[in-house]
Amino acid sequence: MASLKSCFRHSVASVALRSYVAEFISTFLFVFAAVGATMASGKMTADAGRDSSSLVVIAVASAFSLSVAVYISANVSGGHVNPAVTFGMAVGGHISIPMAIFYWIAQMLGSVMACLLLKTTTVAQQVPLHPIPQEMTGFGASILEGVMTFSLVYTVYASADPRRGAMGTIGPLAIGLIAGANILASGPFTGGSMNPACSFATAVIGGSFKNQAVYWVGPLIGAAIAGILYDNVVFPTQVPDSLRGISDGVGV
Amino acid sequence: MASLKSCFRHSVASVALRSYVAEFISTFLFVFAAVGATMASGKMTADAGRDSSSLVVIAVASAFSLSVAVYISANVSGGHVNPAVTFGMAVGGHISIPMAIFYWIAQMLGSVMACLLLKTTTVAQQVPLHPIPQEMTGFGASILEGVMTFSLVYTVYASADPRRGAMGTIGPLAIGLIAGANILASGPFTGGSMNPACSFATAVIGGSFKNQAVYWVGPLIGAAIAGILYDNVVFPTQVPDSLRGISDGVGV
Amino acid sequence: MASLKSCFRHSVASVALRSYVAEFISTFLFVFAAVGATMASGKMTADAGRDSSSLVVIAVASAFSLSVAVYISANVSGGHVNPAVTFGMAVGGHISIPMAIFYWIAQMLGSVMACLLLKTTTVAQQVPLHPIPQEMTGFGASILEGVMTFSLVYTVYASADPRRGAMGTIGPLAIGLIAGANILASGPFTGGSMNPACSFATAVIGGSFKNQAVYWVGPLIGAAIAGILYDNVVFPTQVPDSLRGISDGVGV
Amino acid sequence: MASLKSCFRHSVASVALRSYVAEFISTFLFVFAAVGATMASGKMTADAGRDSSSLVVIAVASAFSLSVAVYISANVSGGHVNPAVTFGMAVGGHISIPMAIFYWIAQMLGSVMACLLLKTTTVAQQVPLHPIPQEMTGFGASILEGVMTFSLVYTVYASADPRRGAMGTIGPLAIGLIAGANILASGPFTGGSMNPACSFATAVIGGSFKNQAVYWVGPLIGAAIAGILYDNVVFPTQVPDSLRGISDGVGV
Repeated sequence: MASLKSCFRHSVASVALRSYVAEFISTFLFVFAAVGATMASGKMTADAGRDSSSLVVIAVASAFSLSVAVYISANVSGGHVNPAVTFGMAVGGHISIPMAIFYWIAQMLGSVMACLLLKTTTVAQQVPLHPIPQEMTGFGASILEGVMTFSLVYTVYASADPRRGAMGTIGPLAIGLIAGANILASGPFTGGSMNPACSFATAVIGGSFKNQAVYWVGPLIGAAIAGILYDNVVFPTQVPDSLRGISDGVGV
Repeated sequence: MASLKSCFRHSVASVALRSYVAEFISTFLFVFAAVGATMASGKMTADAGRDSSSLVVIAVASAFSLSVAVYISANVSGGHVNPAVTFGMAVGGHISIPMAIFYWIAQMLGSVMACLLLKTTTVAQQVPLHPIPQEMTGFGASILEGVMTFSLVYTVYASADPRRGAMGTIGPLAIGLIAGANILASGPFTGGSMNPACSFATAVIGGSFKNQAVYWVGPLIGAAIAGILYDNVVFPTQVPDSLRGISDGVGV
Repeated sequence: MASLKSCFRHSVASVALRSYVAEFISTFLFVFAAVGATMASGKMTADAGRDSSSLVVIAVASAFSLSVAVYISANVSGGHVNPAVTFGMAVGGHISIPMAIFYWIAQMLGSVMACLLLKTTTVAQQVPLHPIPQEMTGFGASILEGVMTFSLVYTVYASADPRRGAMGTIGPLAIGLIAGANILASGPFTGGSMNPACSFATAVIGGSFKNQAVYWVGPLIGAAIAGILYDNVVFPTQVPDSLRGISDGVGV
Repeated sequence: MASLKSCFRHSVASVALRSYVAEFISTFLFVFAAVGATMASGKMTADAGRDSSSLVVIAVASAFSLSVAVYISANVSGGHVNPAVTFGMAVGGHISIPMAIFYWIAQMLGSVMACLLLKTTTVAQQVPLHPIPQEMTGFGASILEGVMTFSLVYTVYASADPRRGAMGTIGPLAIGLIAGANILASGPFTGGSMNPACSFATAVIGGSFKNQAVYWVGPLIGAAIAGILYDNVVFPTQVPDSLRGISDGVGV
């Protein structure tokens, strides 16, 4: 009996460790493509921040790589790839606080490693920082980032909801698409990070923590609101029958 | 017995209220990305209306965000995100008139809120209006918008059809893709709205109701025709057996 | 007994008629977006044929709209949307010759109607023709179109193969994606039609049948080879057991 | 008994031969679109290597065509389309060494044929080579290509994993998307090949083997690491129960 218990504990621990590795790999892949695309467009175009074609490069790279990053880790870690998502999941009680902290560490490490590798291999390139235009306030930027992170985390909640049935299959795609759409909408305003780990890594490797708060405060608040709204208002778990009635067409 | 009935009524009401919230959130997210992308390309390029790269920005942002907006609300409200879709569904009898009116209100509110937020946070930016080139008539523009809304609503009908089986899984993607394709086809002509709520909100916040009728008359008529054609001509429900015979290869 | 037979015949006929309507609608939607995007980029950029951004506009519009056109008609007509596909299906015996002829007529009508509508509503715009650069021979262009149609029809065969199980769900997406990729690869060479109906309609409305043979001979031959190769060499139906053994991992 | 055995052997052999044909066709289609798009953007833009719009053309063509190439061959050959993927699968023991060699030959032949066809039909066009900027070292380029191939092969492993259930349906899409994202991230640095067969073919037809080692050493090492990491660290097969517990929500 005791051996069974310790075996169980060991298994959970081993599963947890694998989750952290999966988050590390997924965040690494995503940040590599997203930041790499920003550096690539910077190398090609002098004023990439005012070139709509460069915005397409960055948004499509982010959308595609985030979809894949979520896809490859969905089965073991849930595919967060983003401290704001982990925070939103913790607020909804879908992940324990200690585990969330390890997720954050794995995501930060993966993100920093990706930026470091990009800086080292692409000689003479600067790791890009998210610029905010002069006329915008940090407060407005924070609200924009918060609203976009809200939609991202809300989509993550929807994708992970087992009540969606077969719809869950395209969940990783949906998560990548909303990130891409939001980057296209906010490119010249805040850069469309929605991901504190990515902003943190570019700041660490790029060497400037200016506006860093914008990419933490807004996203974390937006993520928390998304989790609360999804679980308690739009898809409350207390009334599963009437909901199932609608989605299955059972005729409530 | 009576208590069971009232409980049933209450459940429907609560489900209905959640539907309106879901439509509000989905329309907000979609309009935020679609109008935001138009503003972003306007900020980057002086003459965005004549830049094919800006058209890609707007079309991809609309396609991606509409897919996600439909995806996250599909289970509770059906994922309309568009008064024309709601109208087309009401014509086909898939939603009651009172409920459709509340859907419209939720969509209008979400759309206006998104434009208001964009205007407030991105200082000194104008909310863009759909321009129509001088040589085009309002009548021609209305027909173009109507034809495009026809294809959108026809796709919504196809996606929601339970007879499609596993194909329904990619329904939200299909709805976003047809919107994106139509925007690419009509960008410099009518702007490719296909969504009266979006046109209404940009008019309210942008402060000009010029050509507003174009974005209501055409789309509503196109949506109605799509619903009638799908339900009565191409996929009539009266002959489910022979249809199922073909799709399942049962050999009629 | 006789009445049962006539009822059966009637049902087949009604299903067949619905197939033609579905092909008409799908081809209309596809050609509207594909040709519309070419006209849109022509309106925005003077020399759209030498602008890589315009190529993205056209390829993405074609990819997205073809996916949706196949998706909405898959259940009733099989989602051909293209005379070359219908020809390839007839070669493989998946559709009878008389029915294939009606498919062709429906596709031609839908395609011509879409071009006519575009020409009428967008005043002063020319319906674009597929240009072939001077240094290319018609023979080389025909081979290019044939190879690309081969890959398109091969993908259609793969999507329609019931042995693929759940993979069939994303079939319509795959068909659209290969069309988009081929247009990006052949844009400045042959335009990447792969669809005789589309080329025919632009010729009729545009008023020039120059190079028309290129868009018929190559695609029809490519389509026939795809059908023969798929059914007889790569996925022969005579050995379903060993094949199923591999795909299901039963360990032959 | 003996006849049953020989029949079994014959069936395996015939399945194997079909696998090689499938790999040939898929690699041909992929390389045709990927290299064709590079030639197309080269024809349109003088300095395509510094044009972000051309990068979008190449990345989207590669992403779309790789998704389809994997999709059409997934059922019979596993959809490798890439010697590095085959190597990574051989390292993990998922394909025998002799079979892997035949896969390589089929992929090389398909890739060379595609480049040859493109060169022959598009008169006066050069088959493009992957350029590496002067300031980058071959070592840095090799690491970049290796990291990107790692993420590609890791995604292939995830897509082929039967423990993912319905998620496997979008596997071919995920494989194409990660390739597209990586090309956007590395375009002006290494070109983002991740595929030794493609680099080999452009070198053979283009007539220069400069930097060829970069596109073999990095990718093969990256592929091997991906296979080892996936099978042994993140998703080990020895503990299927605890893993299944998480993904199915059985509550470990």
